[in-house]
Amino acid sequence: MNGTRVKLDVALTIDSATVLSHTESAVAVIDVLRATSTVSKALHSKASSVFPVSGLEAAKEAAMTLAPALLCGERLGVRPEGFDLGNSPLEYGEDAVAGKKLVLATTNGTKALDRYSDARLLTAASLLNATAVAEYLLSTGRDMILVCAGQDGTFGAEDAICAGMMVERMIKEGVLMTDPAWMALTAYRACRHDLAGSIKKCDHAGYLIEEGFEQDVEYCSKADILNVVPVATVLEGRTAVVRA
Amino acid sequence: MNGTRVKLDVALTIDSATVLSHTESAVAVIDVLRATSTVSKALHSKASSVFPVSGLEAAKEAAMTLAPALLCGERLGVRPEGFDLGNSPLEYGEDAVAGKKLVLATTNGTKALDRYSDARLLTAASLLNATAVAEYLLSTGRDMILVCAGQDGTFGAEDAICAGMMVERMIKEGVLMTDPAWMALTAYRACRHDLAGSIKKCDHAGYLIEEGFEQDVEYCSKADILNVVPVATVLEGRTAVVRA
Repeated sequence: MNGTRVKLDVALTIDSATVLSHTESAVAVIDVLRATSTVSKALHSKASSVFPVSGLEAAKEAAMTLAPALLCGERLGVRPEGFDLGNSPLEYGEDAVAGKKLVLATTNGTKALDRYSDARLLTAASLLNATAVAEYLLSTGRDMILVCAGQDGTFGAEDAICAGMMVERMIKEGVLMTDPAWMALTAYRACRHDLAGSIKKCDHAGYLIEEGFEQDVEYCSKADILNVVPVATVLEGRTAVVRA
Repeated sequence: MNGTRVKLDVALTIDSATVLSHTESAVAVIDVLRATSTVSKALHSKASSVFPVSGLEAAKEAAMTLAPALLCGERLGVRPEGFDLGNSPLEYGEDAVAGKKLVLATTNGTKALDRYSDARLLTAASLLNATAVAEYLLSTGRDMILVCAGQDGTFGAEDAICAGMMVERMIKEGVLMTDPAWMALTAYRACRHDLAGSIKKCDHAGYLIEEGFEQDVEYCSKADILNVVPVATVLEGRTAVVRA
């Protein structure tokens, strides 16, 4: 029995080696503040697809090729000149995005999606849809890796807290935790009774609040308000994220 | 006041980027199971110096050049053929090592010491001497980074628990924690009441126990039994670790 138990690993930073091979695993990329929260909100608001890209110029090029498509994203947290939408999930209501293709240029979340693009199965998770994604990953029966996108290679506690919330759901099914999965669980349990207050104390939340995005931080701290599972696929020859 | 508060960062894995620059910081490398426990025990038993090296051949060459020197270390946890001592701290009593130079070849701890060799100040910490090293780092007045050596690039919870114990001591002095420092603190607080039991559940402890090193795991779980601070320096043209 032990030999066939599903294993659960966490990459605490984008460059952390994992015990499991991601090409054989079901992977969730987590960037709570804010890329994967925005993707989840956009797909919940019936955007038809989100094309994550790394650079601003690449985003403009993609938006032209994929036209009609909304040009969305941020640099240093802020909507770049000429872009239709920024990286605030609150901008991604149905009136703005329903039925539309989006090109999304963000700093860390996109990098993490790129890095894990050859995963056996690739999803995007946030606190907004943590349990939905956890249950989807469990349903695959595969080993699982949760990837904390963090900031510029460094560790972001908000992503580990989200990973820990998913671990909490998953261990109910008897999955086998690695050390970093245990660590994430510990972080989640330390702050589960005040998620919003804890997220607000994270380093990157402090930056966003200074930049005027406190509402985003509060919104991104809400657990399980969106029943949506974003999965990566290929559309028109490019990596896209769509509803499962 | 805020601008001058000392900052405390943790590298959760050997490849994690840190917010602070290690060339400007006081750094402690942590490899609880077992390299930095062994180094601490050896120096406490009055070894004159420990020369950490990466490969077995390099260790043999160093031991010849530095002769007389004891040839010590492990591969896959076990003492290699022809070596005087393995990597079990219990082998490093005064009768074995007092007054002697040691060459120590280990897998992960040595790699971490190498990687941070250009730190402003470099020390080695374990649970055995966590508070002694924490107080030494605090006394420098510098920003601080605790480096979790882990296994082969992956995260080892025992190192984060030790880092968290040092964070607990340091925040009493009002240092400013980064996200990973908070995370380590959380891990320590989750298991402070049963350190030995918690360390035993870590992935690498499981491997060592299977290989017959349960006594080592138990010994390495003892907090603050050695009042010794190992610091890196250069002796005879090589990196060496000596008592501060």
